[in-house]
Amino acid sequence: MRIAIPLFDGFTALDAVGPYEVLRMLPEAEVVFAAAAAGTYTDGEGSLGLRATAAFTDVTAADVLLVPGGPGARRGVTDGPLLDWIRRIDATSSWTTSVCTGSLLLGAAGLLDGLEATTHWSAVEALESYGARYTPQRVVEQPGGVITAAGVSSGIDMALRLAELIAGRVAAEAFQLAIEYDPQPPFDSGSYAKASDEAKAYLAQRGQRVRDNR
Amino acid sequence: MRIAIPLFDGFTALDAVGPYEVLRMLPEAEVVFAAAAAGTYTDGEGSLGLRATAAFTDVTAADVLLVPGGPGARRGVTDGPLLDWIRRIDATSSWTTSVCTGSLLLGAAGLLDGLEATTHWSAVEALESYGARYTPQRVVEQPGGVITAAGVSSGIDMALRLAELIAGRVAAEAFQLAIEYDPQPPFDSGSYAKASDEAKAYLAQRGQRVRDNR
Repeated sequence: MRIAIPLFDGFTALDAVGPYEVLRMLPEAEVVFAAAAAGTYTDGEGSLGLRATAAFTDVTAADVLLVPGGPGARRGVTDGPLLDWIRRIDATSSWTTSVCTGSLLLGAAGLLDGLEATTHWSAVEALESYGARYTPQRVVEQPGGVITAAGVSSGIDMALRLAELIAGRVAAEAFQLAIEYDPQPPFDSGSYAKASDEAKAYLAQRGQRVRDNR
Repeated sequence: MRIAIPLFDGFTALDAVGPYEVLRMLPEAEVVFAAAAAGTYTDGEGSLGLRATAAFTDVTAADVLLVPGGPGARRGVTDGPLLDWIRRIDATSSWTTSVCTGSLLLGAAGLLDGLEATTHWSAVEALESYGARYTPQRVVEQPGGVITAAGVSSGIDMALRLAELIAGRVAAEAFQLAIEYDPQPPFDSGSYAKASDEAKAYLAQRGQRVRDNR
């Protein structure tokens, strides 16, 4: 049971690490973080570095492909070697999955044309530009083993469902217990429909400051 | 606003990365991953490596100390240099926090004596051995800025509350929206009280296999 996760500079760490903590517990799981070259890749914030132990050329097949998002995923839609690798692994995988704007990479690789899919709430138009039909659900399953998840933290929910599909419900429930995933967010601001105008304005201003600083 | 996160071999990645994705968005946030020496540290599963850019000796103060757990945290309770650093940073911090068995490190450093605290459901006795009063809540706040969170994924809930304390409710709600944290776990097995006997048995058997393989 090989689980392959591509890394690139500008990924969002929780997109990868949330599902990782579930899927690593699958029976006979072997997780490999792969990238253009083995080495350490820095997240979109610039302060977290995650190690890729394999180059794309070293990983030619996987049972599960899990593509994280992040600012680097938005840029990655023109990254030929990354998209080629995603297509190659998809051809071998039983499950091809994405979290957040990782779905843009699946889209740019041509894997979502005509399918229902989801992404971060801020990337809906970009997703649809690849022929996907945006579906405002947290986890969207499609025939052929394609599963996309919404923004960042949704990868945990997706991974639990995928664990059920692969190893059965008792196993998936055991993994949920292992990570004590009994969420109790202190607010109810986790979707665009629920968040206040003030929270949206705060986030937009923060985004502008981040861009201005670059 | 410096946020310091210690790394050590055998940490649990989501313990650190869940809160990281929230706290990195705080105004003027500077997150530093620190360890005995700068370098890459491997998680408890053995397949994820996270980079520490600073040695403990390079980081002498922080506003927020966030201590992750994992198998390495259970071992770390006898790691003098790690515990010394935790005590030194705690003396400078406004907030000293832990996720999962990170609380055992706070306990071993002498920072939880007489306080209410929480930890992963499997580590309650160990926590109490340090003079803490175990409190079965997901996030436990104490006077003096000590906040402990329960297992693994609870760090996200804790970080949102901490963000509110530091930057106000609108900011914290904006961060929740940014990571689209609108949790929808497919099962209700995320606490020891809720999980089935079958799930508990599965997890115990998996743990035994992991130990046998080492």
